[in-house]
Amino acid sequence: MATGRNHRPATRSRGIPEATVARLPLYLRALTALSERSVPTVSSEELAVAAGVNSAKLRKDFSYLGSYGTRGVGYDVEYLVYQISRELGLTQDWPVVIVGIGNLGAALANYGGFASRGFRVAALIDADPEMAGKPVAGIPVQHADQLEKIISDNGVSIGVISTPAGAAQQVCERLIAAGVTSILNFAPTVLSVPDGVDVRKVDLSIELQILAFHEQRKAGEEAEAAAGRKGPDGDMPAVMPA
Amino acid sequence: MATGRNHRPATRSRGIPEATVARLPLYLRALTALSERSVPTVSSEELAVAAGVNSAKLRKDFSYLGSYGTRGVGYDVEYLVYQISRELGLTQDWPVVIVGIGNLGAALANYGGFASRGFRVAALIDADPEMAGKPVAGIPVQHADQLEKIISDNGVSIGVISTPAGAAQQVCERLIAAGVTSILNFAPTVLSVPDGVDVRKVDLSIELQILAFHEQRKAGEEAEAAAGRKGPDGDMPAVMPA
Repeated sequence: MATGRNHRPATRSRGIPEATVARLPLYLRALTALSERSVPTVSSEELAVAAGVNSAKLRKDFSYLGSYGTRGVGYDVEYLVYQISRELGLTQDWPVVIVGIGNLGAALANYGGFASRGFRVAALIDADPEMAGKPVAGIPVQHADQLEKIISDNGVSIGVISTPAGAAQQVCERLIAAGVTSILNFAPTVLSVPDGVDVRKVDLSIELQILAFHEQRKAGEEAEAAAGRKGPDGDMPAVMPA
Repeated sequence: MATGRNHRPATRSRGIPEATVARLPLYLRALTALSERSVPTVSSEELAVAAGVNSAKLRKDFSYLGSYGTRGVGYDVEYLVYQISRELGLTQDWPVVIVGIGNLGAALANYGGFASRGFRVAALIDADPEMAGKPVAGIPVQHADQLEKIISDNGVSIGVISTPAGAAQQVCERLIAAGVTSILNFAPTVLSVPDGVDVRKVDLSIELQILAFHEQRKAGEEAEAAAGRKGPDGDMPAVMPA
């Protein structure tokens, strides 16, 4: 039916809400686990539980990918892995550099999960001259003097910063000046970047915080059971407004 | 007005949807950054941008905390930090053990973000006898033989697993048998746990995947600009169904 709207519809990539983009890796992680167990299809309910997402939201998210599943059968696991990988841009090879090869940088260099997701560690960079040439995860560390040349030679657009907090902003500026347009920041500091550069900050304590919430809730339930459910105790938060 | 519903309303802790719980640490991270810059108040729009969340969703999430902000002023930053910390259970001290002290375990032991969030590293545990007694982040590593005693002596309910994949399930079972009820798993494997135990798996590549999506989008926009916006090109995904 004609609706009078004849402007060009948004393409899928641009039409996907940011919150959906943030959930796609969660679906991909759950789907990859199913794929590794050779599970051929999955219902939206099962996948929602595995990904920790509401199933109605999952179906809405997948509708942005043009994926609607089959009633009574569910979604084809392998095809969804492919669809989400393509949407996220993981079907191409992304060279990344890791700057700051302390324990965390070394752990990231050794992390198997990057390669399987389309990320190739093109270079490891550290400011310590004593690190230069030493192999970490089979890759010789290069000195920070070479940063600009490494970015340019390898066509790197994604940089990972795992330096101490004090060095991160300067490293960030050099990466951007050399052509990097996306930064993954593990340093415990907030980075300033110009428009057009994406930064994501990893906070390793976030998942611990979610676990603490559940531990607290379990402890509250035990205390309430012990008290014979006499009603809200002093530590319980007030009731929701109606 | 009476509505005929006279059962006890859900307390806040239990009434908070899981998806809201998962966003509370994101708000807390953004609010902590504001607090460090001594910003006294923040609007829902500003905070939503900083946390990467839709502002209507943020207001809904905060309503579960009983926090509604003040029109024209916004939310009190320090009070929100306190409210969210309390809700997440971060105002108490959570002793955690880290099992597996390779590069990642050592990086986690050194990670400053845990202590500031209410988590105290009570012990570092490794199966390698040569590691025993060596200090990492100022804490002597203890041998895995001591795992049960360490958990019991320190009243530990949260365990962090950073062992190789092959060792993770066995470590997980020993932690649970010793009384741990929440597991943060960095090992690249899926853990089986009994009911009542919470597991969260950290995938360090998730944030990289989100950056790859944006890189791909930027590359697509450049290509389209270069092509003079003649219309969808072959690499562009098909349009959304109406």
